[in-house]
Amino acid sequence: MTRPLAVVVLAAGAGTRMKSTLPKVLHPVAGCPMLRHVLAAAEALRPDRIIVVGPPGRDDVAQAAAPHRCVIQDRPLGTGHAVKAALPALKGFGGDVLVAFGDSPLLTTATLRRLLAARRKAPGRPKRRIALGVLGFRAADPTPYGRLVRNAAGDLERIVEGRDASAEERRIDVVNSGVMAIDGTLLAGLLRGLRNDNAKGEYYLTDLVGLARRAGHRCVVVEGSEAEFRGVNSKADLAEAEAAMQARLRRAALDGGVTMIDPASVWLAADTRFGRDVTIGPNTLFGPGVTVGDGVTIHGFCHIEEAVIGARSTVGPFARVRGGTRIGREVHVGNFIELKNTALGDGAKANHVSYLGDGTVGERVNIGAGTIFVNYDGYGKWRTVVGDDAFIGSNSSLVAPVRVGRGANVTAGSVVTADVAADAVSFGRARQVDKPAAARPLRAKMKARAATAKAEGWKMQATAPRR
Amino acid sequence: MTRPLAVVVLAAGAGTRMKSTLPKVLHPVAGCPMLRHVLAAAEALRPDRIIVVGPPGRDDVAQAAAPHRCVIQDRPLGTGHAVKAALPALKGFGGDVLVAFGDSPLLTTATLRRLLAARRKAPGRPKRRIALGVLGFRAADPTPYGRLVRNAAGDLERIVEGRDASAEERRIDVVNSGVMAIDGTLLAGLLRGLRNDNAKGEYYLTDLVGLARRAGHRCVVVEGSEAEFRGVNSKADLAEAEAAMQARLRRAALDGGVTMIDPASVWLAADTRFGRDVTIGPNTLFGPGVTVGDGVTIHGFCHIEEAVIGARSTVGPFARVRGGTRIGREVHVGNFIELKNTALGDGAKANHVSYLGDGTVGERVNIGAGTIFVNYDGYGKWRTVVGDDAFIGSNSSLVAPVRVGRGANVTAGSVVTADVAADAVSFGRARQVDKPAAARPLRAKMKARAATAKAEGWKMQATAPRR
Amino acid sequence: MTRPLAVVVLAAGAGTRMKSTLPKVLHPVAGCPMLRHVLAAAEALRPDRIIVVGPPGRDDVAQAAAPHRCVIQDRPLGTGHAVKAALPALKGFGGDVLVAFGDSPLLTTATLRRLLAARRKAPGRPKRRIALGVLGFRAADPTPYGRLVRNAAGDLERIVEGRDASAEERRIDVVNSGVMAIDGTLLAGLLRGLRNDNAKGEYYLTDLVGLARRAGHRCVVVEGSEAEFRGVNSKADLAEAEAAMQARLRRAALDGGVTMIDPASVWLAADTRFGRDVTIGPNTLFGPGVTVGDGVTIHGFCHIEEAVIGARSTVGPFARVRGGTRIGREVHVGNFIELKNTALGDGAKANHVSYLGDGTVGERVNIGAGTIFVNYDGYGKWRTVVGDDAFIGSNSSLVAPVRVGRGANVTAGSVVTADVAADAVSFGRARQVDKPAAARPLRAKMKARAATAKAEGWKMQATAPRR
Repeated sequence: MTRPLAVVVLAAGAGTRMKSTLPKVLHPVAGCPMLRHVLAAAEALRPDRIIVVGPPGRDDVAQAAAPHRCVIQDRPLGTGHAVKAALPALKGFGGDVLVAFGDSPLLTTATLRRLLAARRKAPGRPKRRIALGVLGFRAADPTPYGRLVRNAAGDLERIVEGRDASAEERRIDVVNSGVMAIDGTLLAGLLRGLRNDNAKGEYYLTDLVGLARRAGHRCVVVEGSEAEFRGVNSKADLAEAEAAMQARLRRAALDGGVTMIDPASVWLAADTRFGRDVTIGPNTLFGPGVTVGDGVTIHGFCHIEEAVIGARSTVGPFARVRGGTRIGREVHVGNFIELKNTALGDGAKANHVSYLGDGTVGERVNIGAGTIFVNYDGYGKWRTVVGDDAFIGSNSSLVAPVRVGRGANVTAGSVVTADVAADAVSFGRARQVDKPAAARPLRAKMKARAATAKAEGWKMQATAPRR
Repeated sequence: MTRPLAVVVLAAGAGTRMKSTLPKVLHPVAGCPMLRHVLAAAEALRPDRIIVVGPPGRDDVAQAAAPHRCVIQDRPLGTGHAVKAALPALKGFGGDVLVAFGDSPLLTTATLRRLLAARRKAPGRPKRRIALGVLGFRAADPTPYGRLVRNAAGDLERIVEGRDASAEERRIDVVNSGVMAIDGTLLAGLLRGLRNDNAKGEYYLTDLVGLARRAGHRCVVVEGSEAEFRGVNSKADLAEAEAAMQARLRRAALDGGVTMIDPASVWLAADTRFGRDVTIGPNTLFGPGVTVGDGVTIHGFCHIEEAVIGARSTVGPFARVRGGTRIGREVHVGNFIELKNTALGDGAKANHVSYLGDGTVGERVNIGAGTIFVNYDGYGKWRTVVGDDAFIGSNSSLVAPVRVGRGANVTAGSVVTADVAADAVSFGRARQVDKPAAARPLRAKMKARAATAKAEGWKMQATAPRR
Repeated sequence: MTRPLAVVVLAAGAGTRMKSTLPKVLHPVAGCPMLRHVLAAAEALRPDRIIVVGPPGRDDVAQAAAPHRCVIQDRPLGTGHAVKAALPALKGFGGDVLVAFGDSPLLTTATLRRLLAARRKAPGRPKRRIALGVLGFRAADPTPYGRLVRNAAGDLERIVEGRDASAEERRIDVVNSGVMAIDGTLLAGLLRGLRNDNAKGEYYLTDLVGLARRAGHRCVVVEGSEAEFRGVNSKADLAEAEAAMQARLRRAALDGGVTMIDPASVWLAADTRFGRDVTIGPNTLFGPGVTVGDGVTIHGFCHIEEAVIGARSTVGPFARVRGGTRIGREVHVGNFIELKNTALGDGAKANHVSYLGDGTVGERVNIGAGTIFVNYDGYGKWRTVVGDDAFIGSNSSLVAPVRVGRGANVTAGSVVTADVAADAVSFGRARQVDKPAAARPLRAKMKARAATAKAEGWKMQATAPRR
């Protein structure tokens, strides 16, 4: 990019039809706010600056826009008005200004590049200045869109809304996406010419085309695919955008060699990374921040976010892997396992129903079924550290902060409240005592209790006096 | 509805192709029997009576029909024969009679209303009586359906089956749905005229059209959408009806503002209710009777039925919420949690692998990982009551009936069999005893045991004599 | 089949685009390697021999081919070269030779039968010998395929690749699937005539048609459906083949009377067997080797493999049933249950969060919530045996090898390390001791600990010195 570039992302729309208190552009797609997708597409152009135009009184939009500057459009007076709000931030900027929309998360960098390239060097009549380029697309149903009317040379003459279009114009199926690249030296002047003498009393960015033409400048059209311009105005739109984004991410994963038994039931985040020979079963959701190593098998029915999974490890089914988890190589994480902010060393195993929170587990450790890392005391969260080659018996509770030394053995059913030395065996359980032939009277007692409860009209479910 | 209305729902079909012992109309769609969907559509018309025509010897159909009267069609002799079975229940009734089908769960009240309105005030020639109206639809493939032959005035002349149709008639693509509104004063007389001189020896309701025309009455057609008339005759049909109903319910939820990351993997019941700003992750099933409050997030992978979820609470992933559960406001229900007939007070937390059955949990209570409410003794089910601000340590078993007082602390790994006073600390676990350097000999012993078992040809999996 | 038949399955393709170290034909579809599907379709023809042509240096292909002979194609020199590699194994064989592809798992026996029948008795000019038959299909997009050029009599004249086709030939939409039935007495001779004077320097099996025609033999075409010939060359292809196979299996299950609420979220294995009146909720995966009895309900969200589920039992939601499991009749398996190599007797119940591994559970046994069969000691796996009518209290650990006798009662929270006699009550837990009014100071202590940790700059998550 030799010529300076500024990108203005319009993100102030109220999104009333979303029926939500969350600003429209912050609704997530593939695990991150729509605005972030648009910013990512823009950032890849390496522009000199990005300016987000947000709504008044919403810190969350400004936060999502960071590190980019967020300017405020104080009232919802149209797209032209929104770009005007960005003018102070563009003061003295003489490069290209690209205008995109924060509620269109599917737009790609490649398409933006084509638009920029076209505005810079459109064919024909090179001496006349090209004031702006517009991204258009061939619409399956052009009815709701402005038609892009081109002259014989292929230049954009004007944008006509359906209701104002002639019969001939209505047949044009290449329509306006709203995305525009404008000569920054002309932008302020053109914006000054915008009028709001229309039904809604708003300033429309599309009117820049007419203004530019009247000033003798050229305007051009670059066509993209309709799918990229899907805007989100309702929860149904949001679900469709999510589906389109997922289809794109799944396709990329398949092309990269990931095996998915049913790609439609695997949900990816925009930043999910896979090694070679990864297999993923059905019903697996990847939240943001997941890296999956070579040869990993995820047996489906898993919910994974912010985690690294090392090579040749297996996970699931029914595993929930939460933020801050680091799974080593050749680790087995089985079913009904929750890992949270926990590191599992190479070769460790936690195969059956366990909660391992805030833990550091050494290499080759075996975590028995039903193990709980008791990380929370009501006030603070504490860490459990288990040394290499330790064996944690089933149904054990390790009450953090606590350390179990290398090679130590915690017997099944133990509650461990104090550190266990390396190679020690820890018992934190009662010795078994059996009462012979006591089960029949016990059964009789339980049966009688239930009968009494029923007879006395107690609800079976209610608390009954004991004994 | 000024004119009296009776609805007759035909529900006696054997449904042989369903390959099930369950009567066809009782197979569920969106969590409730198909018959109930049709009855709900009929009930919304506020008719004077609804009569279900059921098969002989099936109390379950009568039960599903309740509180409406269920009459029996003693033999499967056709739709006309079925309506005849309802005549005694219509004795002296002079209003409109609407005939619908218990195996067509997608029919809407709105369409039925249009049919009733049309029969009452069809345009043209007002002096002649309109005996009946038929719901038709434009069929993608009309082949299997009776064609609705209309005269120049648009009135229905006759219904012609495909095999009896002329080449011209075969081109008619508006076909008979079977749903009919009939002038009740004419119904008995017309039914008397039905003949079973056809291949199957059955009495067809569609023949009423010809009989009415011959008696000089007018018949009219009201068109509906093919999707509403999808009948269910096989398990494949049932799955398609379910998919269509789910699509309808999902669309309504989206339009109401619910965020669904992947609507196709959320299964709703007909009565699922959502507040504002609800977010639902993939793979969530709502059984009947669920109400979800404002701002609730369900992290997907959940199975929820007969439950109320209070505002701003979060649920899942991997939560199973069963009947009788009441989740308060700002409650956290995490992963691998089963709630059954349990109330969780505002601000309570049960984040990790627990079974809470028949419990009453106070406000701000923290339920540790691995907690079990031991509600069943083999004979009766008993309740666990936990007071406000109590702290239940991980891996605890509360043996019901039992009460844990306000602010009490049950230590991790405890078995609580007696009530715990408010603000007491309860220990129901052994003290930890460690044996230094004992793990190596223990490992050696285990290794030797395995080796011996192998050497002696015992199957490793088999029970071995201990020690 | 009166005439001898040999089937040659080409399975040596490298499958570079799969981006995997696993040979292409071993990638699974519906739970079993693609090659096995093709072999199963071939085996149903009851051929005299099946020969798999595999790549050099891959025992896994030979193992998957067993018990059939696997010959090696030493270099990837085309399909003709691959069949040549099978010639030694066909020495002296004079019947039909069918050539199929190991990466086309959707091909059916019925279609292969039609091909064999056609080659044997094609209509017209019966005196001339029919050297070979080719399976063709009508391609939605014929571009990438060889066109099957037929003469006036309908015989196959030649196979023309798109790039070599005339304008007229390019309009032919019946294309070559590659599957071929060849007169075995002609095969060796025809193969000898193959030349590799083409762009890739490979020997193409399709050239046999031209060679056969030049030798005066007839060739015929049999048309199949495009869906059956879907070859797999990439992970996206694999996912599509899986989807097609699943659609086929689901349709068969529905036709057999299985109720599936959402068939698209039920994944079947090729060998999954269902009884009558089976109901399956959404999100259920069946791995290989599952048999489901009459009247079974699977509540969805289940992962089941190598298991038998007896009549009228219920499973799930969120159950994981692993290899070697035998579930009796009227058994309840609830949520967050893992069963591995375990037998559950008739009427047994394991409803809530448990791991039952390597167990034998009697009839009418109640397994309480949180029960663990502690089957692994770090070296060997041992069995837990629970007698009929025993009651296993919640949160118990049964440390295998161990036996709990008939009618015995293991109290909640017990660790059972020694056999429990029939009808005994076993206690393996501490007695409850409460400290009145101790919770407030405890809370103060925890609060102070957290505050200190914070003040001293310790990370809350880090291990802190205890006390």
